[in-house]
Amino acid sequence: MPEYVITLDDTLKFAEQAHAGKPQLPLALRLVRNTGVQKRHIVQPIEETLRHPGFEQRNRIFELESKKRCPVVIEEALANASLMAQDIDAIIFVSCTGFTMPSPTAWLINNLGFRYNTRQIPIAQLGCAAGGAAINRAHDFCMAYPDSNVLIVSCELCSLCYQPEDDGVGSLLSDGLFGDAVAAAVVRGNGGYGITLERNAAYIIPDTENWISYAVRSTGFHFQLDRRVPGTMEPLAPVLRALALEHGWDVGNLDFYVIHAGGPRILADLSKYLGVDNSMFRHSWATLTEYGNIASAVVLDALRRLFEEGTMTPGAIGVIAGFGPGITAEMSVGSWSLDAPTSLEQIPEAVSAPH
Amino acid sequence: MPEYVITLDDTLKFAEQAHAGKPQLPLALRLVRNTGVQKRHIVQPIEETLRHPGFEQRNRIFELESKKRCPVVIEEALANASLMAQDIDAIIFVSCTGFTMPSPTAWLINNLGFRYNTRQIPIAQLGCAAGGAAINRAHDFCMAYPDSNVLIVSCELCSLCYQPEDDGVGSLLSDGLFGDAVAAAVVRGNGGYGITLERNAAYIIPDTENWISYAVRSTGFHFQLDRRVPGTMEPLAPVLRALALEHGWDVGNLDFYVIHAGGPRILADLSKYLGVDNSMFRHSWATLTEYGNIASAVVLDALRRLFEEGTMTPGAIGVIAGFGPGITAEMSVGSWSLDAPTSLEQIPEAVSAPH
Repeated sequence: MPEYVITLDDTLKFAEQAHAGKPQLPLALRLVRNTGVQKRHIVQPIEETLRHPGFEQRNRIFELESKKRCPVVIEEALANASLMAQDIDAIIFVSCTGFTMPSPTAWLINNLGFRYNTRQIPIAQLGCAAGGAAINRAHDFCMAYPDSNVLIVSCELCSLCYQPEDDGVGSLLSDGLFGDAVAAAVVRGNGGYGITLERNAAYIIPDTENWISYAVRSTGFHFQLDRRVPGTMEPLAPVLRALALEHGWDVGNLDFYVIHAGGPRILADLSKYLGVDNSMFRHSWATLTEYGNIASAVVLDALRRLFEEGTMTPGAIGVIAGFGPGITAEMSVGSWSLDAPTSLEQIPEAVSAPH
Repeated sequence: MPEYVITLDDTLKFAEQAHAGKPQLPLALRLVRNTGVQKRHIVQPIEETLRHPGFEQRNRIFELESKKRCPVVIEEALANASLMAQDIDAIIFVSCTGFTMPSPTAWLINNLGFRYNTRQIPIAQLGCAAGGAAINRAHDFCMAYPDSNVLIVSCELCSLCYQPEDDGVGSLLSDGLFGDAVAAAVVRGNGGYGITLERNAAYIIPDTENWISYAVRSTGFHFQLDRRVPGTMEPLAPVLRALALEHGWDVGNLDFYVIHAGGPRILADLSKYLGVDNSMFRHSWATLTEYGNIASAVVLDALRRLFEEGTMTPGAIGVIAGFGPGITAEMSVGSWSLDAPTSLEQIPEAVSAPH
C-alpha cells in the first residue's frame, strides 16, 4: 500500500472545503460517510492529489509510480510462489487508471529479469472487473500450457483520476470510495499453494454498458457512475449460483468468498442474495474499510487476507468474483490446494491452475 | 475499408501546405515518398482529419465510427467461419487508436447477438503487434477450450491520432504511413477452413521500449518513433527462424508469410534476413501500398489477400508475424487446413486452432 494515508475524517473535511456553500454539500458528505471506507492509501500527499496538473503530467506520474511500486509486489509474489522471474511465461498487467504504450509489461520484462519471450497481456478497459479477468485469463493460459506460470500485476492509482471539477453524484461518491494499490499474484500451471482454479466464467448484465464508464477528455479519465449500479447484485447472484452449480457446488455454502468490494451495498446485497452470512465476505469488507475500492486490486488484496488468516484446509471450496464496467462479472470457482509451503515463515500468494 | 481515400499525391500536397517555408519540408516530402504507400482510406473527409477538434471529440468519433464499422466486418467474419454470434466464446478487441471504458466488447455483446457470457479480452497497448497477439491469444484460448470459437476484431482509426502540431521525424513519417481500417476474423477450436495455428511465440527486443511509444497528452495520443525502428528486423529474423525450427520448419522455405507491414524497410529487410524472395511478402506489400500501415489490422488484411488469392493447398505451411511497440513481435506458425468451404462462392476468413 502506498504511504500517504487519508482517513474518513480527512475526506469529509476536504469535501466540506471543495463543496462549501454549494447545494451538493450535504449529498457529498452523506455519500462519503456511506462508503464505509475508514481510510485509503494514495501515492502522493493529499495536497498534490487534489491539484490537477493536466492529463499528461498525471499519466507521467502513473508511469513513474508504477515503475517504483510494481517491482516490490512482483518480487514478493514470485517469492511466495517459489518462482524466479525466468519461470514466468506470461504477464497479465491490469490497470484502468493510467494508459501507456508500450504496455508496462515491456518495462517489466526489460528490468526485472523476465525472459524476452514472455507473453504480454495488458488489459486497460475492464476496470474493476480486471482483477477477476486477470485470474481467469491466467487460468486459461495455464490450461493451454499446463507447465506454464503466469504473473498477474494490478496497478490501480485511482487518485490520479480525481477530477476536481466534477460534481455529479458518481463523482462525489467516487471521491470518497476509491483508493490506490499495487498488487501481484502468480498462477502456476502446476505446483504451488493456494486456490486451485477449477472453472471460470464471465457475464455481462444486458444493456448496462453505460452504467459505469469513463468520459475520456483532455483532462483525462472522468469516472461516471449510474445510480442503478449498487443494485446490480440482484441479477448477478443467480449467475454466480449457476457457475457454482455447474461445478456441483451450492454457492450459499462455500468455504471462502473473494468478492470485489465495489462498495458496501455491493457486498451487503451479494451476501444477501447468495444467502450467506455477511462474515463470509469479511476479507472484502476489510479491504473496503481499510483501503477503499482499489479497483482490480481488490480481489488480490482480499485473497491475500484469506492466505494470511490461515484458516483454509485442503479441499476447502470457494469463489472469486470481480465486477466492473460492462457491467461485467469475471468469476471463478476453485478449491484450496493440498500443497503446503515448505516453511511456515513463508506466506504464499500463489494461485495454481489445474490441467 | 473506409470510404474516404487519400492518395500519395494528396499526402504530398498536404505536407507541402503544412510545412510550407519550414526547414523540415524536404524531409517530410522524402519520408512520405519513401513509405511506398500509394493510397490510404480514412473515416472522415481529409479536411476534417487535418483539424484537431480535441481529444474528447476525437475519442467520441472513434466510438461512433467503430460502432458503425465493426458490425459489418464481424458479420462477414462470422459468415465466412460458418458461425453465428451465439457460437462465439470470446471476443478479442484490439485497437490502439481510441480508448473507451467499458471496452467496445460490451457494446458488441449487447448489440450483435453474442451470448452474455462471452469472454471479453480488450487489448489497447500492444499497438501494431496486437494483430499477431490477438491471433495468438485466440489460439491459446482454443487450446484451453478446444470446442470454443474466438472472434478477433481490430479497429484502427489511425487518422484520429493525427497531431497537426507535431513535426518530429517520427510524426512526419507517420503522417504519410498510417491508414484506417476495421477487420475481423474467427479462430475456431475445430472445423473451419484456413490456417491451422500450430505454435505461437512472443519476443521483446531488449531495451527498445522507448523506440515506439505514445506520448499521452491533453491532445490525445502522440506517436513517437525512434530512427532505429526500421532496423529491427535484423534482431527479429533469428527469432522467427528459431520459432519455425522448433516446429521442424525452415523459415526460408515456407509457403506463406503473413507479415506486419510496418513500412517498406521492415518488409524488405525481413525478407532479406529470412532469405526469402520479396514476392513471398506480396500480400503485406499490397496492404502497405493500397491501405498504408493499418496497425493491428495489417496481418488480418494480408491474411484476407492470402485467402482470396486461392493458391494455398492443404498442407501448405507458413508464418504470421505482427510487430509493434515493445519492440514486440507476436508470431505464429501453422498450416493450411484440409477443410474446404462447402461453396466456392464463399470466401472464408476463418482461422482454426488445433487441440
